Amino acid sequence: MSNLFFKKKNNIKLNDILKILKFKSQKKNFKINDIKTLDQSDKNDITFLNSNKYLDIALKTKSKLIITNKKLKNSLPKKMYIIEVKNVLLAVYEVIGLFYPDALDDDFDANVKIINIKKYLNLKAGKNVLIGRNVKIGKNCSIGNNSIIESNVVIGNNCKIGNNVVLKNSIVGNNTNILDGAIVGKKGFGFYPGNKKNIRYAHIGSVIVGNDVEIGCNNTIDRGSISNTIIGDGTFLDNQVHIAHNVKIGKNCIITGQVGFAGSSSIGDRVMIGGQAGISGHIIVGDNVQIGGGSGVIKDIPSNSKVMGYPAKNIRNFLKDSKLND
Amino acid sequence: MSNLFFKKKNNIKLNDILKILKFKSQKKNFKINDIKTLDQSDKNDITFLNSNKYLDIALKTKSKLIITNKKLKNSLPKKMYIIEVKNVLLAVYEVIGLFYPDALDDDFDANVKIINIKKYLNLKAGKNVLIGRNVKIGKNCSIGNNSIIESNVVIGNNCKIGNNVVLKNSIVGNNTNILDGAIVGKKGFGFYPGNKKNIRYAHIGSVIVGNDVEIGCNNTIDRGSISNTIIGDGTFLDNQVHIAHNVKIGKNCIITGQVGFAGSSSIGDRVMIGGQAGISGHIIVGDNVQIGGGSGVIKDIPSNSKVMGYPAKNIRNFLKDSKLND
Amino acid sequence: MSNLFFKKKNNIKLNDILKILKFKSQKKNFKINDIKTLDQSDKNDITFLNSNKYLDIALKTKSKLIITNKKLKNSLPKKMYIIEVKNVLLAVYEVIGLFYPDALDDDFDANVKIINIKKYLNLKAGKNVLIGRNVKIGKNCSIGNNSIIESNVVIGNNCKIGNNVVLKNSIVGNNTNILDGAIVGKKGFGFYPGNKKNIRYAHIGSVIVGNDVEIGCNNTIDRGSISNTIIGDGTFLDNQVHIAHNVKIGKNCIITGQVGFAGSSSIGDRVMIGGQAGISGHIIVGDNVQIGGGSGVIKDIPSNSKVMGYPAKNIRNFLKDSKLND
Repeated sequence: MSNLFFKKKNNIKLNDILKILKFKSQKKNFKINDIKTLDQSDKNDITFLNSNKYLDIALKTKSKLIITNKKLKNSLPKKMYIIEVKNVLLAVYEVIGLFYPDALDDDFDANVKIINIKKYLNLKAGKNVLIGRNVKIGKNCSIGNNSIIESNVVIGNNCKIGNNVVLKNSIVGNNTNILDGAIVGKKGFGFYPGNKKNIRYAHIGSVIVGNDVEIGCNNTIDRGSISNTIIGDGTFLDNQVHIAHNVKIGKNCIITGQVGFAGSSSIGDRVMIGGQAGISGHIIVGDNVQIGGGSGVIKDIPSNSKVMGYPAKNIRNFLKDSKLND
Repeated sequence: MSNLFFKKKNNIKLNDILKILKFKSQKKNFKINDIKTLDQSDKNDITFLNSNKYLDIALKTKSKLIITNKKLKNSLPKKMYIIEVKNVLLAVYEVIGLFYPDALDDDFDANVKIINIKKYLNLKAGKNVLIGRNVKIGKNCSIGNNSIIESNVVIGNNCKIGNNVVLKNSIVGNNTNILDGAIVGKKGFGFYPGNKKNIRYAHIGSVIVGNDVEIGCNNTIDRGSISNTIIGDGTFLDNQVHIAHNVKIGKNCIITGQVGFAGSSSIGDRVMIGGQAGISGHIIVGDNVQIGGGSGVIKDIPSNSKVMGYPAKNIRNFLKDSKLND
Repeated sequence: MSNLFFKKKNNIKLNDILKILKFKSQKKNFKINDIKTLDQSDKNDITFLNSNKYLDIALKTKSKLIITNKKLKNSLPKKMYIIEVKNVLLAVYEVIGLFYPDALDDDFDANVKIINIKKYLNLKAGKNVLIGRNVKIGKNCSIGNNSIIESNVVIGNNCKIGNNVVLKNSIVGNNTNILDGAIVGKKGFGFYPGNKKNIRYAHIGSVIVGNDVEIGCNNTIDRGSISNTIIGDGTFLDNQVHIAHNVKIGKNCIITGQVGFAGSSSIGDRVMIGGQAGISGHIIVGDNVQIGGGSGVIKDIPSNSKVMGYPAKNIRNFLKDSKLND
């Protein structure tokens, strides 16, 4: 699938990549189509491996060209063309900048104009609703006062967007509500922490919101860096929830107020999370998990578990330990 | 008191309720006035009991018609007309939908228009202030730029509403400030978690804000489901506080930044709560309680206590335990 | 440096101060220039000491006139003119009100108008951008839709202000981004908790934002009460961060989502703080400190430490203790 929100350069070759990463050119130069995650890559894409947590997926990727480091390279198939670098993520962001030179900038969309509701089917819109170019909105939707829908956003049928919402780089399903003050699709908190200066990097991913979803007031949901941030069908988010880049939340989850998800965490289906709990980066939470309010999840949680605490552990142990110390 | 914000159907009879709950009709049919909480019910209202925590109040309710479950019904007076159901809350929300068919929808108010300050006494208003129908505003108030006051809201004298505020389904006292970006009165995070799909339910309660209150920036205060969400006189809320449906906060409390209250928690007078603390649902906190920053309160706290920790316990024990483990 | 945002009364004498604090007049009356913190005071300013934590600075202050309490006064040099009061902060706020009678009010700026971009160098502005009097904006900046920049604010070159931002009482450096929904410069959560009523007090400080800073979506950054709130060069703040009055954050820090800083906390350079961590009031955190997500920092942290937990402790101890209890 091509990127709806960012224009890709189509003439990138292996030697362009090697040059930007400060390697020598190769005689056998060839065209590279795009940079993608391991699971999304096709045979002409470049991909990357930064943690042995994703080694299983690396072994199944269609890509033949991969950026990785010294430690991980020996676990990869011999037939892959490996670009070995010291810092994988820094290299990846340099390659993203090569393919998507406009994506580093996350400025507001200067193309927005007051909406013309006649262009849409049975749309109800408030005052001062601003809409960008090429926005698709399904039938029977409503958009509240002062909300901003930036260019190329896609919204399904029967959706309700509240007041003061900012929606960009997002694709929204049917019957989904986005409540007042939510900010969906801005660039993630992504940068490479340099010794002298923090370096911002581009975010070419989107936010994909399913059907029958509820996104609460003042939520902040950042778009993905390379992959997408995903909110599954039927999932409800309460107020002041923060979802960082690349987070995947499954179906029919219930996430209560002030919960936070760090980057690239992955949540199963029918997961319930109590207020103010936090999920660390790259954590995998299974299906049907219940996480108590205020918990801090810093390791993977298998399906069908009930956990609580900081760090989160089996809820029976949490309550037992709490009693002993009381 | 009649509901300011939602139109009630006035011809509901017992058999209408029995029908929607899938019971047989009764010969002795009679008119039911409204659905209310135990303490608010009058003799012609239907009420409900879902936890033995509220049994004392149930024994004093004026209502003669009550929805409850098998476990709780035997504790109720014999003279009450009991409708026994498996899931009390689900039944309650179906009955609410019967009385208030318009209340499920929480769409933005399409009746708002740019304010005409001449209609109010010494009102100072910013640019693009939007106001609904039948809004009452006292004398000497100010409303900042881009703020939205929806229909039927009542605001007292000498109030200051900041910029980008959304105020709906709320009654605000005198000398109260609501700071920039606060969202007050939207529907609570209420739904019945179904196996296949989460079911949203109506919220017919309001937010009642007292006199001399301060509501901080980017606060989210949800309206009650059946009862009201209440912020008592003289209570100050810092930034990014989240208050769920039906929460009652007493007088002269000081609630610092990023504190969260889960649904139906009840807080006494002169309570001080440190930053990022969380109060679980249905918890009762007494008067003059001090709760340390970051605490997680998961059981009732008696008056005049000082607690801290997760779960919150006596502050001396917290500090002692923390030392031992350091 | 004179105060950009509040008008100071220039004819205040010692006896005016003594009168408001309910002391007798002195024969030797003299002019007082301003009220300032210990480190910022000049010889004609009045200052104050409220904690022995700041005694070192008190011994070096240029001021000769100081408000303090019985306990602390004996540690001060004999040559200082000491005004001994029971409650230092309450006295300070009364003196602030004397110098800055307009600063108690934190109402929105009624002088804002739709921006005229021709008045600035290469400025890109969205719809409905509101700007106050005497605002300075450097070259090549952008300001998103519905954002409000109040009077006297100063913004450097190459800054990007997002949508729905409120910026007041602030001075912003170069190359700094302030993302959608951030509220910067409003009055801090400052009041004196009275027995009968909480008393609000004036905030005459500003927010000083350095160069190359990133302020995330829906951040709330309050201005200082007497000193300033400071965000150092190169520091990045993620979404939903809350920064209370007088907080000082150093250079090149990385503060992730939903972190909260209580009033007057002080953070060194190159500090990294994980999501949802909280820093208590008046805490001092050194340079190069790493604070794990969800931590509650309630005591000073020396430079180069790694801490985690609630209360935060050495990360090795945290992980060891967590294992034992699991």
